[in-house]
Amino acid sequence: MTYCVGMLLDAGLVFASDSRTNAGVDHIATFRKMTVYEKPGDRVLVLLASGNLSVTQGVVNILGQETHAANGTETIWTVASLVQAARLVGDALRMVYDLDGAHLKQHREEFGVSMILGGQIRGEQPRLFNIYAAGNFIEATPETCYFQIGEIKYGKPIIDRLITRHSTLTEGAKCALLSFDSTIRSNISVGPPIDLLCYGRDRLRVEFRRSIDEKDAYFNDIKRQWGRGLRETFATIPDPDWPAPSLEERVSQVRIGNGPAGPMT
Amino acid sequence: MTYCVGMLLDAGLVFASDSRTNAGVDHIATFRKMTVYEKPGDRVLVLLASGNLSVTQGVVNILGQETHAANGTETIWTVASLVQAARLVGDALRMVYDLDGAHLKQHREEFGVSMILGGQIRGEQPRLFNIYAAGNFIEATPETCYFQIGEIKYGKPIIDRLITRHSTLTEGAKCALLSFDSTIRSNISVGPPIDLLCYGRDRLRVEFRRSIDEKDAYFNDIKRQWGRGLRETFATIPDPDWPAPSLEERVSQVRIGNGPAGPMT
Repeated sequence: MTYCVGMLLDAGLVFASDSRTNAGVDHIATFRKMTVYEKPGDRVLVLLASGNLSVTQGVVNILGQETHAANGTETIWTVASLVQAARLVGDALRMVYDLDGAHLKQHREEFGVSMILGGQIRGEQPRLFNIYAAGNFIEATPETCYFQIGEIKYGKPIIDRLITRHSTLTEGAKCALLSFDSTIRSNISVGPPIDLLCYGRDRLRVEFRRSIDEKDAYFNDIKRQWGRGLRETFATIPDPDWPAPSLEERVSQVRIGNGPAGPMT
Repeated sequence: MTYCVGMLLDAGLVFASDSRTNAGVDHIATFRKMTVYEKPGDRVLVLLASGNLSVTQGVVNILGQETHAANGTETIWTVASLVQAARLVGDALRMVYDLDGAHLKQHREEFGVSMILGGQIRGEQPRLFNIYAAGNFIEATPETCYFQIGEIKYGKPIIDRLITRHSTLTEGAKCALLSFDSTIRSNISVGPPIDLLCYGRDRLRVEFRRSIDEKDAYFNDIKRQWGRGLRETFATIPDPDWPAPSLEERVSQVRIGNGPAGPMT
C-alpha cells in the first residue's frame, strides 16, 4: 500500500508520499512515489502515485519521454495549463491500460491506481488534481483543499481538524508529517522514508524538498511532542459529569462503604 | 457502514457502537448495533455487530431464543464460559449462512459481517472476542486489548496512542467517544447516537450504559476541548529547524533583501 497527500494552500502546495511497496508480506521494498517535473521560472509539476507499481511506473515512463504520442505534440514540459497536464497523465494511464489491462484481468489483478498531480505553470494559479484509474480527474477547490490517495483513512482526521486553505506551508508540512505518523503507527504497509516537498506560490521552482527517514531528528521530535501533547490534552479533558457516579467512584464506594456522610441506619 | 469498539482493560470492559445503517445514500436509518445479555450476579455479555443488517439481526434472533438448537441444550444464558458463548455466536452465524449465504451470492451480496463479544460469566475473568463471518474467532490478550469492527481506520490512531490495558474505564470511555468523533467527522456512513456501555470487573451487572446523541452536552464539550487541545498542541510544536530556511522565511528574505547582516558586495 501507499499513502500520499497533496494540499493546495493560499501560500502554495505541500506534497508528501511514503516509500513502502509490498506484494505480500515477504516482498517489501522501497520505491519513491513522488516524481517532480521542474523547469525553473516556467513550471513545477509534482506527481504522486498509489497502486499497482507497474502501472504507475508505466505512466511515469510515458510522461518522461520528451515527445510522447498521447495527444500528438504536447508534453508535460510544454502544456500551457495544469488541466492539460492532468489530461496527459490521464492519457498515459489509458495507454498503460490498453497495454496491460486485459492481461492483468487474466491474472485477477486490479488495474488499481490513483494519482495526485499539482503544481504551477507560468501564467496560471497553483492547481491540484486527483486522477483516477480511468484517466478522469477532479480538481481541488477552496472548500476541499487537499487530496489523499492510498491508505488514507488513518491520517485523515488530523488534516480535517487542522488544515484550511489559509494554513501556512510550514503548518501544511507539519500536519502532513503528523498525518504520516498516525498512518505508519497503525498500518504496517505504509513506511518511511517520507518524501516532502513544499512549493511556494509563484516561485516556479522547487525550493524545499526533503527525504525524511526514521532517524530524522525533527520528525522524531514532533512525533514525541505530538504524542505527549495528545496525552496531556486527554488528561485535562474532564471526566463525564453524568447523573450516575462514574464506575470508578462506585467501585471505591463499595470498597470503603458510604463513609461518614452516608445515611445512618 | 458501522463503527464499533470493545476494550478489555484491567478495570473491566468498555463497549461503544454507532447507530447508522445505510443501503445507498438515500436509505439511511438508525439501528442499534449493541445487544446486551444480562443476568445480574451471574453474567453480562455484550454483542456488537457490523455488516449486513439482515445477517446480524438473524444472529441476534437465534441467540435470543431461550433454547436455540445450535449446539443442543446450551444457550447464551447457560454456557459456563465466554469462549462457549463466542462459539454459540459462531454457530448462529453459520446457521444464518446456511439459510441465506447462497441466496445473497445470487444477488452478488457479500455475507459480510463481523462481531465483537465481550463480558464476564461468574467464575471467569472478563474476556473479549472478535468473531468473523465464517464463525471463527480470536480473543483479546494483554498486548492487544481492544477490537474494532466496521469503519475502523479513522478512529484507530487515537486508541493506539492513548489506551493500554492499565487505562481506567473512564479513560476508555472518553477515548472511545473521541475515536467516534474522529470517525464521524471524516466518514458520513458512521453516525450517532453512540451506545456506550462500561462494565466494571467482577460486578456481574450492567451499571453504566448511555445513549449519546449529537445534543449530548458532555460529548459536545469533550469534542470541543479535544479539538482545541489538538490545535494548541499543534501550534506549540516547533517549526522545522532544517538547514535550509523555511519557505516562509525565504519568501520574506526575498521581499526585504538580505538585510544588514548579508554579505557585502
